[in-house]
Amino acid sequence: MHKGRLKTLFTAVAGLFAGLLLAYSILSQINPEAAGGLKASKEGVSEDVVDAALKTYVPPGQLDEYYLFASGGHSGQLFVFGVPSMRRIRSIPVFNKESAVGYGWTTDTKEMLGDFDWGDAHHPALSETKGDYDGRWLFINDNANSRVARVNLDSFTTQQILGPVPNIYGPHGSVFLTPNSEYFMMASRFAGPIPYGTYSDIDNFKEDYKGVMAAIAVDPKDGNMSVGWELLLPPWSYDLSDAGKGVSDGWCFLTTYNTEEAYHLLEVESSQRERDYIVAINWKMLEQAAKDGKVKDIGGAKVIDPNDVPGSVYLVPCAKSPHGVDVTPDGKYFVGNGKLSPTVTVFSFEKFMECVNNKDFQGEERGFPIVNYEKTRVAEVEVGLGPLHTQFDDQGNAYTSLFVESAVAKWSLSDFKVSDKTQVHYCPGHLTAAEGDTVNPDGKYLVSLNKLAKDKYLSVGPSHPESMQLIDLTSSKMKVLYDSPVDPEPHFAQMIKADKIKTFEVYPKDETIEGAVYAKEDARVVRDGNNVTVYMMGFRSRYYPDTVEINEGDHVTWYLTNTDFDEDITHGFGIMFYDINCEAQPGQTQKLEFVADKAGVYPYYCTNFCSALHQEMQGYLLVKPKS
Amino acid sequence: MHKGRLKTLFTAVAGLFAGLLLAYSILSQINPEAAGGLKASKEGVSEDVVDAALKTYVPPGQLDEYYLFASGGHSGQLFVFGVPSMRRIRSIPVFNKESAVGYGWTTDTKEMLGDFDWGDAHHPALSETKGDYDGRWLFINDNANSRVARVNLDSFTTQQILGPVPNIYGPHGSVFLTPNSEYFMMASRFAGPIPYGTYSDIDNFKEDYKGVMAAIAVDPKDGNMSVGWELLLPPWSYDLSDAGKGVSDGWCFLTTYNTEEAYHLLEVESSQRERDYIVAINWKMLEQAAKDGKVKDIGGAKVIDPNDVPGSVYLVPCAKSPHGVDVTPDGKYFVGNGKLSPTVTVFSFEKFMECVNNKDFQGEERGFPIVNYEKTRVAEVEVGLGPLHTQFDDQGNAYTSLFVESAVAKWSLSDFKVSDKTQVHYCPGHLTAAEGDTVNPDGKYLVSLNKLAKDKYLSVGPSHPESMQLIDLTSSKMKVLYDSPVDPEPHFAQMIKADKIKTFEVYPKDETIEGAVYAKEDARVVRDGNNVTVYMMGFRSRYYPDTVEINEGDHVTWYLTNTDFDEDITHGFGIMFYDINCEAQPGQTQKLEFVADKAGVYPYYCTNFCSALHQEMQGYLLVKPKS
Ligand SMILES: [Cu+2]
Ligand SMILES: [Cu+2]
Repeated sequence: MHKGRLKTLFTAVAGLFAGLLLAYSILSQINPEAAGGLKASKEGVSEDVVDAALKTYVPPGQLDEYYLFASGGHSGQLFVFGVPSMRRIRSIPVFNKESAVGYGWTTDTKEMLGDFDWGDAHHPALSETKGDYDGRWLFINDNANSRVARVNLDSFTTQQILGPVPNIYGPHGSVFLTPNSEYFMMASRFAGPIPYGTYSDIDNFKEDYKGVMAAIAVDPKDGNMSVGWELLLPPWSYDLSDAGKGVSDGWCFLTTYNTEEAYHLLEVESSQRERDYIVAINWKMLEQAAKDGKVKDIGGAKVIDPNDVPGSVYLVPCAKSPHGVDVTPDGKYFVGNGKLSPTVTVFSFEKFMECVNNKDFQGEERGFPIVNYEKTRVAEVEVGLGPLHTQFDDQGNAYTSLFVESAVAKWSLSDFKVSDKTQVHYCPGHLTAAEGDTVNPDGKYLVSLNKLAKDKYLSVGPSHPESMQLIDLTSSKMKVLYDSPVDPEPHFAQMIKADKIKTFEVYPKDETIEGAVYAKEDARVVRDGNNVTVYMMGFRSRYYPDTVEINEGDHVTWYLTNTDFDEDITHGFGIMFYDINCEAQPGQTQKLEFVADKAGVYPYYCTNFCSALHQEMQGYLLVKPKS
Repeated sequence: MHKGRLKTLFTAVAGLFAGLLLAYSILSQINPEAAGGLKASKEGVSEDVVDAALKTYVPPGQLDEYYLFASGGHSGQLFVFGVPSMRRIRSIPVFNKESAVGYGWTTDTKEMLGDFDWGDAHHPALSETKGDYDGRWLFINDNANSRVARVNLDSFTTQQILGPVPNIYGPHGSVFLTPNSEYFMMASRFAGPIPYGTYSDIDNFKEDYKGVMAAIAVDPKDGNMSVGWELLLPPWSYDLSDAGKGVSDGWCFLTTYNTEEAYHLLEVESSQRERDYIVAINWKMLEQAAKDGKVKDIGGAKVIDPNDVPGSVYLVPCAKSPHGVDVTPDGKYFVGNGKLSPTVTVFSFEKFMECVNNKDFQGEERGFPIVNYEKTRVAEVEVGLGPLHTQFDDQGNAYTSLFVESAVAKWSLSDFKVSDKTQVHYCPGHLTAAEGDTVNPDGKYLVSLNKLAKDKYLSVGPSHPESMQLIDLTSSKMKVLYDSPVDPEPHFAQMIKADKIKTFEVYPKDETIEGAVYAKEDARVVRDGNNVTVYMMGFRSRYYPDTVEINEGDHVTWYLTNTDFDEDITHGFGIMFYDINCEAQPGQTQKLEFVADKAGVYPYYCTNFCSALHQEMQGYLLVKPKS
């Protein structure tokens, strides 16, 4: 920055703070409650608080620095926030119906949702190239129906749902991508008889119930997902996973609990052992095995029995019921978060490989070698109570959420010592740092995804919001900058630098699109027996045609093209009493299908405010009765 | 505030600003982009901007001052924001399914939603007592399916959906309550043949298509809504409405457009006339007429023909296609917002009554007297282009949104002159002021509900967020404090002082609740033929029972009681592949019903993070195959 400009800015800033100071003191004396916000604070306002206010305020005309993508949990959605303002910019329907955009109503999206009106969206994963977010796609799992979805980041819309993926009951521990988005793993949280639909009594748990991990392949051209191959595993609960990178590329890691193989009273019975495992899997070896045909078909998937591929799976002992497993940015360490132990355990991938290569095992279970714990582990960091997840910054620090302690611990990857701790409110699950899952984290910001809000926000009744807290990482002590309420329930989030995402604003005109109509002369209603096709065009502020006459019982296919090729000019389309709504974004063509099973007169109208004459954008669907 | 404390605060604030100033200048020199938020701003930071940051930052440990309830438009939801932070605290499902809370899945809510999975929520209305918000209920209309819902503000949950209300095609102009919440009016935006299902060709529009207004009665004890009576009206489009108050109590006002009675090409044909009307209706007279039996049954409603009640309906000429009609806090004026005319027209209720009493009419249309425009109108305020809606403060000022001009105009109810104007971004629809629809507005804050965001936020593809802007009313010039993105599509909002709302935190234990189970010994599965009833209890971190065995084809009724009577300890309940999820809030009992049409093994689990052992809160539903 030029020195002269700097000086001017400095002077301006000095002046404005002096002015503000005066304004503030006057306001305080007149009526300390009158102004709202920080200025209405009756308690002493600390410097930190003012600092936080200024650091999180994004002035009109400027944009946030990062996108934060947070899963919506059992709402099935994906929430998009801006950082540092923590404003929620968009909710993207993924596993849920969303009438505002017609998601679950248009032919495409209805097919995509299939038999399910909900999903349990857990862990979003931004696509990566060479271990860095590339801003192309976001993948997210559905723990309830064993599915996974792809959101395209040029349009912020869900473009594919894959699943139910065969044989995986509750793929909680996904999506965690390999460094070039070749694959992500989905491992079963619940053991169950496979394929789906198989009945076996619960007392046959140890024999008939299986754990399974699927490797989902991602097409590097278009992000298309397909089931690559699957791996049979013991009937344990697989909790979370992470993919190796750098030196550990080619491996992935799963945490386990309930290696006790209990199937009743889990909150007691599954926590008996002092240690469960991190399962280390050589996915490149398994990929080759699948290519070599060492698979059998179960439920339509190519399933590998690990006994057929010796050396592909190892067990690493870890403090009991570990929750998250997180690979450091350089790929040298993998970290197990204790959950029921006050430690994170740091394992060296190099040491792990030494044990593997030297067959330095301390036993085996279910046929899998257990590597030497003492040699593989390089540190047990005493972080505090209830460690769940760890993220990383650009300075060689790690940050671990402490659920029970309601805190975040900062510790060093050099000396494995805790250097700072900050309280969060309350009960953090995941954390996410700026570009925190890449090989080059940014530091700067950390967001704590807290499970309980209690009294932090205006009460909205017995169901409280979840709470995300933005934490400043730019100085040696962490500082909580902002409390952001959120709908249920972000389990995980990722943060990407804003300039990495390139969106488009208008759908291009393309005469080859099924049903598209770009001129009002081409708008028409075509009948073929009792199949009626409406080719409709919407343009500020009219539908062509604005009257459609059909017969009761007709099968109707209705195309709508929005020919306003203008930024932000979206038209809605709702038909009264027919439970139909969608929107057509600028240039977009939508397709709806329904049976005209109700006779009478049904107004249709633009449901998305589009112009001064929006209210006039309407028409009538007349359905002539049969008799 | 005590003087000593004030001085201390003053000193502290002085210090912190000095410190901040230093910090700011240092930061600016080192790396102007590093800190995010206001501190990263490279443009000169104005005093106003810093002021805005401090006024909108609600420090941790403190709460927002107002609740803002914004309709969710075609998403069917209701959004709850805190003011001045503009944080979205909650999304309340109203006309949409929401799996996170099981809304649309539990037996009660499924019945309430009926045949519709969506609605078009337009205008929320907080219940009033003596013209002031009383914090008990919120009502909101569904323009698409002619329904209206009640949200109880002790729990922030939808408790009643009424409708489809007979004969009203698209009740856009609701909900606007009378001063003691006796009634609200719903008037048809679309003319149509009545009752619903009647077929009549569009060319019979002028004869067979009707406008209708319904008076919905609200039970003062519990807020229960019922259709009181209806009124036949000409086949015009009724846009918005407001209820009289104070001197005008007993009357209500509807704006009209398309008095041309066009039924094609509305964006041209319905704007031919220089004037449409505000319809003034003496609802107390019609209420009496209904009591006197001057009604006929149409579609199950008691419908009044206005010809049978002379003196109940008058027409007030207003600049063409007026959009909003707004009654001043004292009830003395009603204001028509021109939409296609750059003016708001202010009518005196007193003058209107003089015309009525003196039969000072300038004509009649469709049998209704048209009152003398020149006498009734007291001012035409030249506010600017595209006036849509007007709100009021506590200083005798009115604020009108200017859609075309992208601005808000402030004008005086004393001299009817515009005193200030501020730009908003972009295209405001409704405005809402703090307690702005009461007899005692607070002033202080105004929120502009903008229809277009364009480039105001990080891009989320071709569909942009809507945008709400918080405007400071505490000085003579309006100041935009904050830009808040929001999902589609708030049409209107209301703002209520936070302390007026009293929520509860835990559902009380009540043995009389159907299906409730408060002790694990009482948890059980009961079979009666092929009807199976599960009485389940959830308690950190286990379900009782944690295995349920049934047969394929069974009809299942499943009760879940959450016996954690602790603030914010909610349990979820999802069954894999059965498309079922709900939550039970602290102390709550939920009921689900389904047919076990798929054999096999189906894990169920807690979908709402509840404790360190949440992941262990699971069980198995075993469905034995028929064969
Ligand atoms: Cu439109
Ligand atoms: Cu739970």
